[in-house]
Amino acid sequence: MTKKIFLNESEMPRQWYNIVADMPNKPLPPLHPGTKQPVGPEDLAPLFPMELIKQEVSADRYVDIPDQVRDIYRIWRPSPLFRATGLEKLLDAPVKIYYKYEGVSPSGSHKPNTAVPQAYYNMQEGVKKITTETGAGQWGTALSFACQQFGIECDVYMVKISYDQKPYRKIMMNTFGANVYASPSNRTQAGRNILAQDPNSTGSLGIAISEAIEMAAQDPHTKYALGSVLNHVLMHQTIIGQEAEKQLEIAGDFPDVVIAPLGGGSNFAGIAFPFLRHNLMHGKNVRAVAVEPASCPKLTKGKFMYDFGDTAGYTPLLPMYTLGHNFRPAAIHAGGLRYHGASVLCSQLLKDGLIEAQALQQLECFEAGVTFAKAEGIIPAPEATHAIAQVIREANMAKLEGKPRTILFNMCGHGFVDMQAYADYFDGKLNNHEFTEEELFGNLPEIDALQPTA
Amino acid sequence: MTKKIFLNESEMPRQWYNIVADMPNKPLPPLHPGTKQPVGPEDLAPLFPMELIKQEVSADRYVDIPDQVRDIYRIWRPSPLFRATGLEKLLDAPVKIYYKYEGVSPSGSHKPNTAVPQAYYNMQEGVKKITTETGAGQWGTALSFACQQFGIECDVYMVKISYDQKPYRKIMMNTFGANVYASPSNRTQAGRNILAQDPNSTGSLGIAISEAIEMAAQDPHTKYALGSVLNHVLMHQTIIGQEAEKQLEIAGDFPDVVIAPLGGGSNFAGIAFPFLRHNLMHGKNVRAVAVEPASCPKLTKGKFMYDFGDTAGYTPLLPMYTLGHNFRPAAIHAGGLRYHGASVLCSQLLKDGLIEAQALQQLECFEAGVTFAKAEGIIPAPEATHAIAQVIREANMAKLEGKPRTILFNMCGHGFVDMQAYADYFDGKLNNHEFTEEELFGNLPEIDALQPTA
Repeated sequence: MTKKIFLNESEMPRQWYNIVADMPNKPLPPLHPGTKQPVGPEDLAPLFPMELIKQEVSADRYVDIPDQVRDIYRIWRPSPLFRATGLEKLLDAPVKIYYKYEGVSPSGSHKPNTAVPQAYYNMQEGVKKITTETGAGQWGTALSFACQQFGIECDVYMVKISYDQKPYRKIMMNTFGANVYASPSNRTQAGRNILAQDPNSTGSLGIAISEAIEMAAQDPHTKYALGSVLNHVLMHQTIIGQEAEKQLEIAGDFPDVVIAPLGGGSNFAGIAFPFLRHNLMHGKNVRAVAVEPASCPKLTKGKFMYDFGDTAGYTPLLPMYTLGHNFRPAAIHAGGLRYHGASVLCSQLLKDGLIEAQALQQLECFEAGVTFAKAEGIIPAPEATHAIAQVIREANMAKLEGKPRTILFNMCGHGFVDMQAYADYFDGKLNNHEFTEEELFGNLPEIDALQPTA
Repeated sequence: MTKKIFLNESEMPRQWYNIVADMPNKPLPPLHPGTKQPVGPEDLAPLFPMELIKQEVSADRYVDIPDQVRDIYRIWRPSPLFRATGLEKLLDAPVKIYYKYEGVSPSGSHKPNTAVPQAYYNMQEGVKKITTETGAGQWGTALSFACQQFGIECDVYMVKISYDQKPYRKIMMNTFGANVYASPSNRTQAGRNILAQDPNSTGSLGIAISEAIEMAAQDPHTKYALGSVLNHVLMHQTIIGQEAEKQLEIAGDFPDVVIAPLGGGSNFAGIAFPFLRHNLMHGKNVRAVAVEPASCPKLTKGKFMYDFGDTAGYTPLLPMYTLGHNFRPAAIHAGGLRYHGASVLCSQLLKDGLIEAQALQQLECFEAGVTFAKAEGIIPAPEATHAIAQVIREANMAKLEGKPRTILFNMCGHGFVDMQAYADYFDGKLNNHEFTEEELFGNLPEIDALQPTA
């Protein structure tokens, strides 16, 4: 049995897949917070290059990947598909387990899959600088690398607590040539407002987004980039699942279940959407399971409603499962999963019963991560451990029910830069988290106009 | 042009290459420090399993790789060969540059190539525990992973300054199930002696080796493992160069120069020895360049003589280029290159003019590392930057001389766990190092009996 399945560079997909084309219920439009009317391209133009805006609203099933993007993808793509032989042996259940490994990328996660095309389209339209936010640092590192490839300056607003506690990611961004600022900063009105209220604020992803957007909006040569949530970002990630399809074909296999962590949704969309296409178009019945942390349970406990994507309320209103844009997730180590909302596309699919959601506690996830490291030789990022924990649950269920199944999951990144999380786990410093009703729902916006109309 | 060249798992080499078979002057024997007579298998038996002792003294050209070892190698092998398209474009010199990337392994470096067979042979002979030393942590991580695969307990003595300053590596070892002790420790006589002299000792690789050896020597079910220097360790690494040979054949190429960093010698041997075979057996003329840090210049400024491999003098006397077993290298960030001697095989080859050596300052190396990260998207380990700096020198030389050349180097590991080194570089905290004569030669043993006889 082959442990790893590679594709040649010539077999790399030439198009991204846009699931909007095949959704039975199309996503509701983003609304302008002032007018409550659908936003148009002109509303988004200060922040994004026109080509990305077109992709954001496109209903075309496939979008061509530019040659210059494919050329840079070749640094790490096609990424390997692994058969989890070590984990299968350990679990002793009637399952075949495959994982797509995105940790081979320059930043060690799936994020460069969208960072590279985003930087490319900005370069094409003459943009000189891109601003963005980053939490744990995965997205900021990916965009720093991508901007470097196209000679674009990159300013990253990094959530202050990560800036202070996870210096390695900051240095990686510097190595790829980016400027990194602790957020909230004094560089923006949004940052100054927060600091006036709380000079010791440790920041949040929502605040950092506000700062990056504010800087981009002020300068015609500066644009903004987002690492998840938006339709075009999710679409760029579908190269993952499309490669996995081809690799599983080589293995003579097809998944019964596809599993991925969900923070904003791009990781999950990347591997799951190309397989959901088989459901939507060819009557297949692949289960797609999005795994979120129990400490930020927007899919399983949030409300489907219009809400802002950031804290300051600069973004359009998005129709999504949300815990409220002022929701403060508990401090858990899977920084990439600590976002208050889920992407519009994933939210609509969940609402329509086309995907499943599962919330898991972090102690179960870290235990799964250590098991995986020992069995497979790869230490997973804390985000990735959420998928692994669900894989183990599926395997145990298969054993209990006596129903064999083939599982595919997105091993979205390695944990080399997250070892402090494992140290805290070993030292017994991590806890599970149970919310009170007030904590969970106290932040939901109370504005009626934010509700989608029937 | 293909960016990456992969081999199928079925194309993985089935034998290691033992250069001893082809050396014109065979290496001098290790001597017992008491009797000054060549050591026999019985002298080594307390520390190593018999199969490794046989390999250590073997003159067979090829040694079969056991199936169970190849099975674990498949987690990351065959490793990719990259064409450095980004770096080539930047350097604009008449060179083709290829690099073999060993950062895809479980520990992120080439070290598991020997850790896995060492653990395997120990398991075969019923060993329950393996002790070892580690400096920056690469070797300890590799052995932790390997022991985990075969159910062997692993005790790692980690140089105290790294234990304190580089906690990530320690946690990786814990994740793979190993016990890690700061060295010097109170667990051994060697450690207690050092602490009695200097309670604040920050340790050294030589001291940690002494501690690990002492623990292994006391217990019949415990053996010791070394991550470099010894003949069998170098041989295990030759899978790197053998794969590169096949991959370059696919590319229709053959190197004029092979470059690798040299700490103990296994990294360099791994990629260079299979190409030196073409010189020794087929009249080829491949240049092999070993790059050492200017702060630990045993190849370029050391003496060829018998010396101990460790600080306490527990090892046999080895005929090698050395700066003296009490030499304290300056604190540089390439921890894997801070060893006082070079392996017997590399030393003999250098003495016979069959390989070249080059000492480089760390500022030039880090500059090269940042250049490489931006051009190729992989942040290199500080050790690997030494090879990259030399590659850039070769490219500039080729341009100056108008003589095209094909360069292959060992990109022996990624720098994800070494970002503090880059931070210190960016912050201007790193310096070059010039030695006084006294500093360089003040530590050479003065015992005549340590000299090799003519």
